[in-house]
Amino acid sequence: MQYLVCKFGGSSVATSEKIQQIVKILEQNPLRRCVVLSAPGKAPSYPVKVTDLLITATKKVLAGEDCSQEIRQITDRFTSIYRPLNLPEEIIQKILSDIDRRLSSDKSHPGKFRDLVVASGEDINSQLFAEYLNLLGMKASYISPLQAGLIVTPVFGDAQPIPDVSLKLASLKRLIPDQILVFPGFFGYTADGDVATFSRGGSDLTGSILAEALDVSEYENWTDVDGIFSAHPQMVDSPAQIQALTYREMRELSYIGFNVLHEEAVRPVMRKKIPIRLRNTNNIKNEGTLVVTERLPSQRDIIGIASGSGYCSFTLYKFLMNREKGFGRRLLSIFEDMDLSYEHCPSGVDNISVILDQDQLKPEAVNNIIRTITEELKPDDIRTEFGISLISVVGEGLIHKIGVLAQAAKALSSAGVNIKMINQGSSEMSIIFGIDTSDERKAVSALYKEFFSN
Amino acid sequence: MQYLVCKFGGSSVATSEKIQQIVKILEQNPLRRCVVLSAPGKAPSYPVKVTDLLITATKKVLAGEDCSQEIRQITDRFTSIYRPLNLPEEIIQKILSDIDRRLSSDKSHPGKFRDLVVASGEDINSQLFAEYLNLLGMKASYISPLQAGLIVTPVFGDAQPIPDVSLKLASLKRLIPDQILVFPGFFGYTADGDVATFSRGGSDLTGSILAEALDVSEYENWTDVDGIFSAHPQMVDSPAQIQALTYREMRELSYIGFNVLHEEAVRPVMRKKIPIRLRNTNNIKNEGTLVVTERLPSQRDIIGIASGSGYCSFTLYKFLMNREKGFGRRLLSIFEDMDLSYEHCPSGVDNISVILDQDQLKPEAVNNIIRTITEELKPDDIRTEFGISLISVVGEGLIHKIGVLAQAAKALSSAGVNIKMINQGSSEMSIIFGIDTSDERKAVSALYKEFFSN
Repeated sequence: MQYLVCKFGGSSVATSEKIQQIVKILEQNPLRRCVVLSAPGKAPSYPVKVTDLLITATKKVLAGEDCSQEIRQITDRFTSIYRPLNLPEEIIQKILSDIDRRLSSDKSHPGKFRDLVVASGEDINSQLFAEYLNLLGMKASYISPLQAGLIVTPVFGDAQPIPDVSLKLASLKRLIPDQILVFPGFFGYTADGDVATFSRGGSDLTGSILAEALDVSEYENWTDVDGIFSAHPQMVDSPAQIQALTYREMRELSYIGFNVLHEEAVRPVMRKKIPIRLRNTNNIKNEGTLVVTERLPSQRDIIGIASGSGYCSFTLYKFLMNREKGFGRRLLSIFEDMDLSYEHCPSGVDNISVILDQDQLKPEAVNNIIRTITEELKPDDIRTEFGISLISVVGEGLIHKIGVLAQAAKALSSAGVNIKMINQGSSEMSIIFGIDTSDERKAVSALYKEFFSN
Repeated sequence: MQYLVCKFGGSSVATSEKIQQIVKILEQNPLRRCVVLSAPGKAPSYPVKVTDLLITATKKVLAGEDCSQEIRQITDRFTSIYRPLNLPEEIIQKILSDIDRRLSSDKSHPGKFRDLVVASGEDINSQLFAEYLNLLGMKASYISPLQAGLIVTPVFGDAQPIPDVSLKLASLKRLIPDQILVFPGFFGYTADGDVATFSRGGSDLTGSILAEALDVSEYENWTDVDGIFSAHPQMVDSPAQIQALTYREMRELSYIGFNVLHEEAVRPVMRKKIPIRLRNTNNIKNEGTLVVTERLPSQRDIIGIASGSGYCSFTLYKFLMNREKGFGRRLLSIFEDMDLSYEHCPSGVDNISVILDQDQLKPEAVNNIIRTITEELKPDDIRTEFGISLISVVGEGLIHKIGVLAQAAKALSSAGVNIKMINQGSSEMSIIFGIDTSDERKAVSALYKEFFSN
């Protein structure tokens, strides 16, 4: 279908003005017929997101405490957005009354109760917005995920769409030619009819599922940034905006540092090769960043530089280690048994390192890891290092380009950055360097300068 | 002790002239008091090593076949070496008669029988050499590993010294001031008194064990090459000889390409920090290559470039792979269950590679690996690549030297070499590149030129 699915994030629905801006966006292109909304995010006079207020309210209710303060803040919030838009008071109050109904529902399954309440932010916002569009004379319908058939797994707080969900949702195709569909993000219904939410930020996934089901020409994801940049604006002054990149490049960039889309949101559109366009609600003129299956080769070898801090490494030394079959596997098992994910596992002749996100580690973890490794693998030595940053130089087909590594290594070397780890091999489109976090900014700007300054 | 242990390899004992050369070496420095001998290796008119003849003879005997041809070749060989040195015929024949005794021993345990026969090459050679030294008036004693207490594990064909073996052997210290000890390499005795050999090349290990037990000042390992070179002479014309390197650098170099010492031979001397000196029996003037615990920083950042071909890779792609805990461990388990060792396992965001020696793979292995991976890990895609060479740039403390990677990458890039894999991280002293085998020579010479040509 030639239509577009447009998902608007929390900041894009945070005030009356933002809602009017969305209307402007919809008017600008009549093909924008499927709107997915988040719950209102932070706004100048409202420092707490509606979803966070709902989470707090749920916790209080489950603890037997009073949550009237949070509920008042939530209803005030919606009223502050839609009353200035002249949405009739009785409609606002009727829709908002749904919160009380949810709060008084069965609490015997806390996760189920939590999801029912927390999902009301998106659900109420979508109902109010659909009413507002109708008030403006734009024919619109709120679509209930239950009626539409957005069936999800019964994993409360971290649900997944069921495999054939897009077949069920495809029946929405009949409705779209006549009206704008307003669909709440973030949740679906289990086969038993219970509300279950995706993980946080899951409205992106709702939009992607609908884009797949409706087989639209593009999935627009509207937030408060212009798109994806070639480096993080906190690391480099005014980095270049990326015009187009592939899904895989976005995954590589978002792995460390660039958190643009909910990571599972890519899968549904990727299956149908539907482009995603990341756009800024506050800057409609900017065409945003297009995420596609295949892109034209750009003039530059690399598309972006991502970086992230907070990694640590455990390095084992053992003479004749490479003669011990299963050494690497046993080492990884130790981390897995402690429920720890690892990022990289480079190995030399008589040594092997495990690099992982140090935020996962509880205070006693380092000691326990060293103790278990010592007991089970009997290394000659084991060393830990904290405060490592990973820097990823990303570009489709990078691995086939002679000279990119030399350029990157020279840039880092000229900037006086010591490279502790390099990882290139499995990925065709990134080289990952491990460096001291104190060198991170220096390293990113050196690489940015090398690859983007001419 | 200020004495030296000198181990002479198969080529160094292959002819009468070589034996005379050893005498010259012993005369040159009276501290050379402990001699470890291999069995005679190849020589101009003798294309088969004595040990290989013994292995063939054993196989024939165990198969009920006649081995008189091999035995005649062996006795001829020893006679051809020691008769021209005027060792009395009756001594030669008496010592050689030991082979018949061994061949007629119990064959109920084939491995035990094999080791007993195969070890006779070193044992006979050492007895003959000790007699020859005495003939020359140099006081010498053949030392039986049984009497000396070289106790090994009862793993026939791949025995290991028992942990406290050096304590037992230390009693040899009493004998050394008065005479030259001639010790056969390659084997020891089990606690039950059976001969058991080390793995092939294990005379290096015998020398190292004795060096540790006698706590000597240096372990000289005499072969037919001047020492270790900065690159393989087959890859680079007249590469520079390395004056001194650390044990760890030697391990890194020998991992791919440089096979200098039996790999387990380093452990005993390393425990006592005894230097190893690799020397050329045919070029006494050359001081050889010294292998030490710590070396002086050299003028060059790197000490050598090793390369090896015959590697392959399996690369898996799976969207959101890094969210699946245990993915890497499960992948390595698949290879381990098939009894395959892996060399490296670089990983990206949604992909991971396993690089391994392709000589391990039976014809059906590739298909089975792909099938098992597909069933157990359900990747989106899996790709294989064969004909990969690994190149290792080695130098102690390399990881702390800014710019070495840039230099290496630039050299490879200027030579038009495409880098498929890089591994730096766990090892502080090497960067390993994976490239096409067709680029191997080009890559090694480019790196050699970069690091050694000025």
